[in-house]
Amino acid sequence: MAAPLSRRDIDFLLYEWLDVTALTTRDRFADHSRETFDAILDLSADMATKLFATHNKKADHHEPYVDEDGKVVMIDEVGTALAEFGKAGLAAGPFDEAVGGMQLPTTVNRAAMAWFQAANASTSSYPFLSVANANLLCEYGTDEQIDTWVRPILDGRYFGTMCLSEPQAGSSLADITTRAKPTADGSYRITGTKMWISAGEHELSENIVHLVLAKAPGGGPGVKGISLFIVPKFLTDGTRNDVALVGLNHKMGNRGTTNTLLNFGDGTHRVARSSDTESSGAVGYLVGEEHQGLSYMFHMMNEARIGVGFLATSIGYAGYLASLEYAKVRAQGRPVDAKDPGAPPVPIIEHPDVKRMLLAQKSYVEGALALGLYCSRLVDEEQTGEGDDRDDAHLLLEVLTPIAKSWPSQWCLEANNLAIQVHGGYGYTKEFDVEQYYRDNRLNPIHEGAHGIHGLDLLGRKVIMRGGAGLALVVTTITATVDRAASSGAPALSGYATALRRAVDRLVEVTTSLWATGDPALALANSTVYLEAAGHVVIAWMWLEQLLAVGDSVGDFYDGKRAAAQYFFRFELPRTAAQFDLLASLDRTTLDADPAWL
Amino acid sequence: MAAPLSRRDIDFLLYEWLDVTALTTRDRFADHSRETFDAILDLSADMATKLFATHNKKADHHEPYVDEDGKVVMIDEVGTALAEFGKAGLAAGPFDEAVGGMQLPTTVNRAAMAWFQAANASTSSYPFLSVANANLLCEYGTDEQIDTWVRPILDGRYFGTMCLSEPQAGSSLADITTRAKPTADGSYRITGTKMWISAGEHELSENIVHLVLAKAPGGGPGVKGISLFIVPKFLTDGTRNDVALVGLNHKMGNRGTTNTLLNFGDGTHRVARSSDTESSGAVGYLVGEEHQGLSYMFHMMNEARIGVGFLATSIGYAGYLASLEYAKVRAQGRPVDAKDPGAPPVPIIEHPDVKRMLLAQKSYVEGALALGLYCSRLVDEEQTGEGDDRDDAHLLLEVLTPIAKSWPSQWCLEANNLAIQVHGGYGYTKEFDVEQYYRDNRLNPIHEGAHGIHGLDLLGRKVIMRGGAGLALVVTTITATVDRAASSGAPALSGYATALRRAVDRLVEVTTSLWATGDPALALANSTVYLEAAGHVVIAWMWLEQLLAVGDSVGDFYDGKRAAAQYFFRFELPRTAAQFDLLASLDRTTLDADPAWL
Repeated sequence: MAAPLSRRDIDFLLYEWLDVTALTTRDRFADHSRETFDAILDLSADMATKLFATHNKKADHHEPYVDEDGKVVMIDEVGTALAEFGKAGLAAGPFDEAVGGMQLPTTVNRAAMAWFQAANASTSSYPFLSVANANLLCEYGTDEQIDTWVRPILDGRYFGTMCLSEPQAGSSLADITTRAKPTADGSYRITGTKMWISAGEHELSENIVHLVLAKAPGGGPGVKGISLFIVPKFLTDGTRNDVALVGLNHKMGNRGTTNTLLNFGDGTHRVARSSDTESSGAVGYLVGEEHQGLSYMFHMMNEARIGVGFLATSIGYAGYLASLEYAKVRAQGRPVDAKDPGAPPVPIIEHPDVKRMLLAQKSYVEGALALGLYCSRLVDEEQTGEGDDRDDAHLLLEVLTPIAKSWPSQWCLEANNLAIQVHGGYGYTKEFDVEQYYRDNRLNPIHEGAHGIHGLDLLGRKVIMRGGAGLALVVTTITATVDRAASSGAPALSGYATALRRAVDRLVEVTTSLWATGDPALALANSTVYLEAAGHVVIAWMWLEQLLAVGDSVGDFYDGKRAAAQYFFRFELPRTAAQFDLLASLDRTTLDADPAWL
Repeated sequence: MAAPLSRRDIDFLLYEWLDVTALTTRDRFADHSRETFDAILDLSADMATKLFATHNKKADHHEPYVDEDGKVVMIDEVGTALAEFGKAGLAAGPFDEAVGGMQLPTTVNRAAMAWFQAANASTSSYPFLSVANANLLCEYGTDEQIDTWVRPILDGRYFGTMCLSEPQAGSSLADITTRAKPTADGSYRITGTKMWISAGEHELSENIVHLVLAKAPGGGPGVKGISLFIVPKFLTDGTRNDVALVGLNHKMGNRGTTNTLLNFGDGTHRVARSSDTESSGAVGYLVGEEHQGLSYMFHMMNEARIGVGFLATSIGYAGYLASLEYAKVRAQGRPVDAKDPGAPPVPIIEHPDVKRMLLAQKSYVEGALALGLYCSRLVDEEQTGEGDDRDDAHLLLEVLTPIAKSWPSQWCLEANNLAIQVHGGYGYTKEFDVEQYYRDNRLNPIHEGAHGIHGLDLLGRKVIMRGGAGLALVVTTITATVDRAASSGAPALSGYATALRRAVDRLVEVTTSLWATGDPALALANSTVYLEAAGHVVIAWMWLEQLLAVGDSVGDFYDGKRAAAQYFFRFELPRTAAQFDLLASLDRTTLDADPAWL
């Protein structure tokens, strides 16, 4: 089996481009060094390859099920792998030492975790959701909540979930109907149904810490009335809380991760307590203040969105490497200008169209990985930088997050599509890994905000936030790269710089003209097209950044970076011209289409 | 469940656009009328909905398997549906009355059959492969072969296969190693292994008629040495022939169709005959002349390729209608300019981005269906037209076939991708149909010539055949449509005409400049990009044709055609500009990429 990720590429991105070693001069990371970073990367690559990749296919073939006692049953390898992961302390990477963490830079931690995502998307989801959960509680929970719920998550003993969606309310959180009722002891009783809860029920951990959005009395209508609660599967005294598994969703992919419909407070596990006359509902503990739940959840959602981007990227990367290996060993056909039909067939990697499919994949997955790590580097800057750098990092991250989530979800899925195509008929069978990658990756444009939601977020909120400072910062940041490339003296880079500068200009022009309409419905009618065009601009920027890091370096690895960048600038970035034309025309096709015509 | 296809659209395409009723003035179709056409369409829609769609999901969940006796077991519903299909004579639609056929125009027959493909891709594959097989034998077989093998296929008692690929030779048929050895009685003995044989083994029919490519002594190297043989599962005396099932392939989709690895002549079912001292090998009967096998198979392959285009289109269509129905009933969110967060949520079909996804699907599936029926109309013209019309139809069909296969395989799969997205998380689950459509449709860019093969076919053979007459004919045909649209007086049509004329000009320009290089490797380096650009041009033409048929007609159906055409001309055709730019630049990125860089 091919390695699911390239350590050489990660070393390039971390050390030759983002210079993460420089972070060790900052107080927070002072105990770290290239050696500790490498140790984590080595450990992750090794464990991911030996314990996670090895059961990826088996977990897909043996989906979790509910036995007659109502317990979720899954293959043993999942629990074994996660126990080792927890024991190694890998859940605690970026957390403060004060709560048991390693204070690892997020950039390094994300790169290490990408090995697990690439090796086994569904098993890696259990700790990843838990870490996002713990991160939110560290930010907004009380010290007691951190001691009670976060420490065991970082030890790998508890897992966590995020419970937002309901059967009638997916993207539209304003419409949730789960209720929270305060009780005399300061806790709440939670009643309602939550849908699509990944890792919502299993026997993998001692406890499951659900973070639940619910409406407490006195909130306004819509999203303003939403509060956030900790609702554990087991209370601290060991009592089973009233959180009931109603059913598992059976999915096309990502089948190893349980995905559940949960009832809170339906009486299945009714909790009666002497100190509390109220005994209906699951016991929940408020996080932070009432009616502020959505803003806390957004903190977790931004992190989760970048995490989904990494997941999509990692699955895409695994498919790229699998198809690359296949293309090198599979012999078929001859060059179009070959004269002798009796000559032996050549490896398919010799055929230009196969090279096209490999270059496309390479440009997508390496471009997406660069963006994910760039955003992670911004998280580190936000956490440990100073003054303007810190503020800029925060703002830039806000604007880039919808792209860091949606672009890999779209294009690394397309990479998996091409990985199947390189394999021909074999790629369509379960004997090879790529069909599973394609199915697993199809989840990513759906969860953590469906694809179109990020278009509304980018065009409707992010680029106009702080009076347009968001877009302006992106532009100056990209322009700085473009200027360096233009003055590098390398003809290829200078050509790419010109193309990217033009694309950025057009992005600014259309943003201005869309909002100049004064009509939000019209401005946002084609926000998905805007999202996709902006995504290609950002990834082109990531490729130019990588080429600047490559410089004059010699060798196949660097020539590969040059070839993938060339592919992206010639085959991909030019797609944006038609998208910008459409946006500039203030096209009303989608807006004006009458549902009766469809 | 939504109907899997739109009868209204089919009526429009057949009667309002292609005027198939006019065909009844030709001798071959003289017994037919609008009434007989409608009867076949009604029967097909009814049977497809009641007997085929009803077990589509079940067949996916219960993949065929091999029992301890080596027999293939599948759910009963497949056999029941196919028995009814055979009994109704539906396998015999377009065949000559002399062999038991209905002499139905291919255009009408394809439209009728699309109902079965849309309702159940995998069950419909059994008769479809059989019909293609029978068609080839009618063209190249002897009268005795037709009586022995074709008549029972048209009666629905025998099924057929096409056995081309081998484990080491998929796209590259020159490299097949299956051998045919002549024997004293005029038959041959066949030895070798065939891979990816759909419907290669089952208990659904009395016999299975394999059409097998093999190399007989005395042929040259490469494709020239290939002959075609009938190799039945059972000989006419009831003896089991030496065709052994080695195994079933387990696929991501299209799981109801058995896909087999077959050994010919491995001794599992050794055939010994008194009249024949040679007893090693499966018994085979030569079709036509030795060493001409590939040219006969191409006859079947062209038909099969258009059939794959219909299959991809039909699955795409079923997904479109399913997501349309879902979007009308699923309420979520509010318009972006809504003021009251307490107002009830609206059906998601009100959201512009959902309308975008529905319009895109509509433009893909209705555009693809139009192209498939247009090509079928050319088949009718080829068969019953006169003089130049007949020759032109033949040539135009040759050029359009790679597009009629590959464009729907690419874009109706994308339609299925969008159908999932419209459903959100529900679309990713097995509770709904769209995830299966997406998996089923992913086969189509792979079989009957992988996607890239059609680029080589189009640019490397078809557009330059007969000294460029192929391309010239496409251009004059499209230009005739463009001229009619330009002079129609309708502003929208005139704008589309200008855009399409420009795109056709560019297609001609790049074709000329690519071949002007004198370097086939360079000319063909980006042939897939060429294929995709040409495909968008052709579908834009199909939309303009439909709009001319719409004329001034009033009503939601016609407004829907206008909206989908508008979508295609504004969102899709402009994509080709970047593709033509790339081709015009004679880009060497894929050609020059060294495999070591990847």
